Amino acid sequence: MADLIRVSTLWPPVRPRSIDLGATTHGLLEAVGLIREVDLAGSFALMPLGVLIRDRIEAIIRKSFVEHGFGAVMLPMLQSRAIWESSGRWQVYADAEALFRVVGRGEEESACLGPTSEEISVVTVASDLASHRDLPVRLYQSTNKFRNELSPRGGLLRAREFEMADAYTFDADRGGMLAAVEALNAACQSALTRMGLPGVLTIPADGGDISKAPSTEHVVRSELGQSQFVECPNCAYRADPDVAMAAFPRPDRHHAADADAQTAKVMAFGCVRGGEELVVSVVIRGDLQVSHRKVAEVLGASSIRTLSEAEFRACFGVEPHTLNPAIAASTSNEMLFDTSVADLRDFTTVSPLTGLIHGANWGEGPLLDQVTPERPVTVHVADAGLWCGKCGEGIFESHRAIELGHVFELGDRYSTPMGLRFVDREGRHAAPLMACSGIGVGRCLQTLADAFRDERGLSWPAQVAPAQVHVIVAAQGEEAERRALRLQGVLAANGVTTVLDDRDVSLGERFRYAWALGLPHHVVVSTRTEDGVYEHTDRAAGLSQDVTESDLLKILSGVG
Amino acid sequence: MADLIRVSTLWPPVRPRSIDLGATTHGLLEAVGLIREVDLAGSFALMPLGVLIRDRIEAIIRKSFVEHGFGAVMLPMLQSRAIWESSGRWQVYADAEALFRVVGRGEEESACLGPTSEEISVVTVASDLASHRDLPVRLYQSTNKFRNELSPRGGLLRAREFEMADAYTFDADRGGMLAAVEALNAACQSALTRMGLPGVLTIPADGGDISKAPSTEHVVRSELGQSQFVECPNCAYRADPDVAMAAFPRPDRHHAADADAQTAKVMAFGCVRGGEELVVSVVIRGDLQVSHRKVAEVLGASSIRTLSEAEFRACFGVEPHTLNPAIAASTSNEMLFDTSVADLRDFTTVSPLTGLIHGANWGEGPLLDQVTPERPVTVHVADAGLWCGKCGEGIFESHRAIELGHVFELGDRYSTPMGLRFVDREGRHAAPLMACSGIGVGRCLQTLADAFRDERGLSWPAQVAPAQVHVIVAAQGEEAERRALRLQGVLAANGVTTVLDDRDVSLGERFRYAWALGLPHHVVVSTRTEDGVYEHTDRAAGLSQDVTESDLLKILSGVG
Repeated sequence: MADLIRVSTLWPPVRPRSIDLGATTHGLLEAVGLIREVDLAGSFALMPLGVLIRDRIEAIIRKSFVEHGFGAVMLPMLQSRAIWESSGRWQVYADAEALFRVVGRGEEESACLGPTSEEISVVTVASDLASHRDLPVRLYQSTNKFRNELSPRGGLLRAREFEMADAYTFDADRGGMLAAVEALNAACQSALTRMGLPGVLTIPADGGDISKAPSTEHVVRSELGQSQFVECPNCAYRADPDVAMAAFPRPDRHHAADADAQTAKVMAFGCVRGGEELVVSVVIRGDLQVSHRKVAEVLGASSIRTLSEAEFRACFGVEPHTLNPAIAASTSNEMLFDTSVADLRDFTTVSPLTGLIHGANWGEGPLLDQVTPERPVTVHVADAGLWCGKCGEGIFESHRAIELGHVFELGDRYSTPMGLRFVDREGRHAAPLMACSGIGVGRCLQTLADAFRDERGLSWPAQVAPAQVHVIVAAQGEEAERRALRLQGVLAANGVTTVLDDRDVSLGERFRYAWALGLPHHVVVSTRTEDGVYEHTDRAAGLSQDVTESDLLKILSGVG
Repeated sequence: MADLIRVSTLWPPVRPRSIDLGATTHGLLEAVGLIREVDLAGSFALMPLGVLIRDRIEAIIRKSFVEHGFGAVMLPMLQSRAIWESSGRWQVYADAEALFRVVGRGEEESACLGPTSEEISVVTVASDLASHRDLPVRLYQSTNKFRNELSPRGGLLRAREFEMADAYTFDADRGGMLAAVEALNAACQSALTRMGLPGVLTIPADGGDISKAPSTEHVVRSELGQSQFVECPNCAYRADPDVAMAAFPRPDRHHAADADAQTAKVMAFGCVRGGEELVVSVVIRGDLQVSHRKVAEVLGASSIRTLSEAEFRACFGVEPHTLNPAIAASTSNEMLFDTSVADLRDFTTVSPLTGLIHGANWGEGPLLDQVTPERPVTVHVADAGLWCGKCGEGIFESHRAIELGHVFELGDRYSTPMGLRFVDREGRHAAPLMACSGIGVGRCLQTLADAFRDERGLSWPAQVAPAQVHVIVAAQGEEAERRALRLQGVLAANGVTTVLDDRDVSLGERFRYAWALGLPHHVVVSTRTEDGVYEHTDRAAGLSQDVTESDLLKILSGVG
């Protein structure tokens, strides 16, 4: 953008008094004119001042990745169905209805909009990969991704089309891949910290559709977030509830018992392992949730889903809420006992004929005499209220968080099925091991806005602000105008872009907009002070003082 | 990218002797590793050095538009079917099979990938446009566009997914719109010139699917191009053959006659005017082509197409090649005589019964006694060989060209059907008048490569080069290595990025790659010269000299 941005020429037009300072953060971003939700629900346009912030965020991320050895590429967003079928993900994403499928000529869905770029990075590297001497490969890009979110919401936090800065690595062996994961985590952390984001945490997490291997989320705590993690107040251990180690039970310090906590309930799932469909029953304490991820990991299953009611009845011959451990044991392909029920005594279970049965014990009575929890496994979700599995001393607290970055260990999840090969040191063909990461550019923008907003509006850290200085002319007449333009010339010569509010509205109105927009420095030009002296306000600190031009340049050179 | 790019770490790996210097320009871009065609035919990935060139081109274009008063935005690429139906273009593009249609949930084609952004810019502006005080609006962006080309070819010249730097303007009246068109043309011209492109021409052209109003192409002459224009060698008048004014006939200087030039042929079309379907016949000289665009303009038709053979027979009752002016006149809704047949004497025509008839004249004989060319119109394509319509003195030559930019006058073509309104000075609701432009970023990259390549490879102008200096260490051992890294440090401190060829290959091989890649400056570090003295080669000029460090910095500061 030019060295001088006149508010009167900005799109959208800044209207007097239309800014609701109590709005949600994305509402505030809309109100000051940085973004607009347009056309499809969950689609956003960035307006000129928003683009300037996005540019700076993107440049910080790219710099961080380049410093860690990545080369910036741009891969196609439109990707063939063939490559998504070769990785086995076309159906997975299509079933979840998360894929935007694309029809070209005729009626065939022959392509899709990339929700991520593992497949296209594999085929890109495949053009040139020959031997171990070509490895490692470290690629970075920042392009739009597309996910058909069922209910896009939260502004830029969950959009259908969104910019993601993603990176892909290819290595000859596991040691190389782990070094790549380390570089990805370091680059993510460096990027998020450089933007000025406070309190960025790394959380061991679940690879989801991307990978079965462990992954690392880079998050900040926020009630706006759609991620969750548990944290131990004693040892500060943090993790995704589907990944966290929860110690359970500790008989000496038992979780405050309610009726559900004295119940052994049975849940049933359909799993796929080695191409075979299994029915799996899990016995778990009534107040706990089964973690799909943990069950899949214990079984080595490639997928897991809840049975439909019809499947449930066909399989067990009873209603879902009347399934008990004895029936489950006789019918399921696999039976798991969660650690939470191993030591239960005098608990409640159910019989399809007589209803609830109290005072039951494993291996006793007509119902459970053949049922004992052998080799219990930990498959419950590590929710708040459970004991920390790391130190055994704290009780987990649960926090909401915004996932800004995510680093995945991919191994040969994509290279093997897609046939990506290289000749290793011993002359054998091998599949490179991959890792990847993604940082949501729009999420960073909105999270920064959220982290620094105050009762007067937004407040951008200097390193991502769309401009450093907001100039307000507090006097009328040519003299003040002349002073303002001279100051702007001096700032421009020093590489500083100025936003000048040249609207014909009240002074109060112009101050209101300056505080709401949140550039780091406000400068008031008036005829109250002598020529060359200005009132400077530090937006974040809220402090004002009269400064000379050279003072002002000194203040500005310390930042941004 | 970092201040030091080591060739050994580049992706794709630079392989000895794999560069075919005689390849097509996009083949050469592939061979030196700047681009890769991946996945779908006509889809390209930019590799790291290619991204650096693209970044510089994009920055030059953005700067040129910002200087002309545009604000940079980013609009969604995924766009709803609803907005494309509201402009009436969903069907037009779908019929031409140029649209990538998108299926979200269910089976419905509810969205598309934007081939251009007129519709999405209208809905974006609609959120905020209220009164004439909000106008003019000047928006610029550079995002990927998607067109389902039947046969993508020519590398980045005609890709299915391609980056286009496009701009949209909205004005209150015709004067404003014309000023906007002027600004768009000036910004395009400034951008293309700043990149270093030689011989950029502006050509009056045809708005195609975008607009019926006149448009301006910004082109460079090239045999690689898929555009064409005619030029008068006498007065230098240039235009698209579908737009150019061709003077015809000039009886005193008649076009060298062949049999076709002595024939009056009849062509028939289906046109839509005011919602009504018309059959239109055009009588034209046998060696000329009918310009659909010119016919539509003469008739005020909104669309025009060639009749199918079946339609032809049903309408005229004869085979297409036996249609003569008399039958056409009695059956068509409209009949046009091209100026080329007005003064024909003793010409050839055809009878469905007796075949060719020679020596015919208008208004004479059993066949043409009722037929005279009244009010002839110019509807022939202004091909090479015709007389210039501007000066009447030169004979048109035809040239192929690459269309790099295109500026369109849109008027209310989009604002009226899409219901975009503002309150004008008189308090009435009015539709803003629009204009737009597009510059193909990848096309610019490939055209620059093509314009400056020579027998040794590519040669980038300093303003778009991915780095300024290519360093080759011509001696082995620590001393040469130390000198190279010290030089790189000095260059980095002066803001100059260095490409250092650190591969373990022959010196000849490294020189070959340096010439093929085409950075503006080559510096050889050896122990032949004293410490601090280097051999500098100007890549474009091919001249070498020994220089000191300070000489080198002086040479570099003159450029880029």
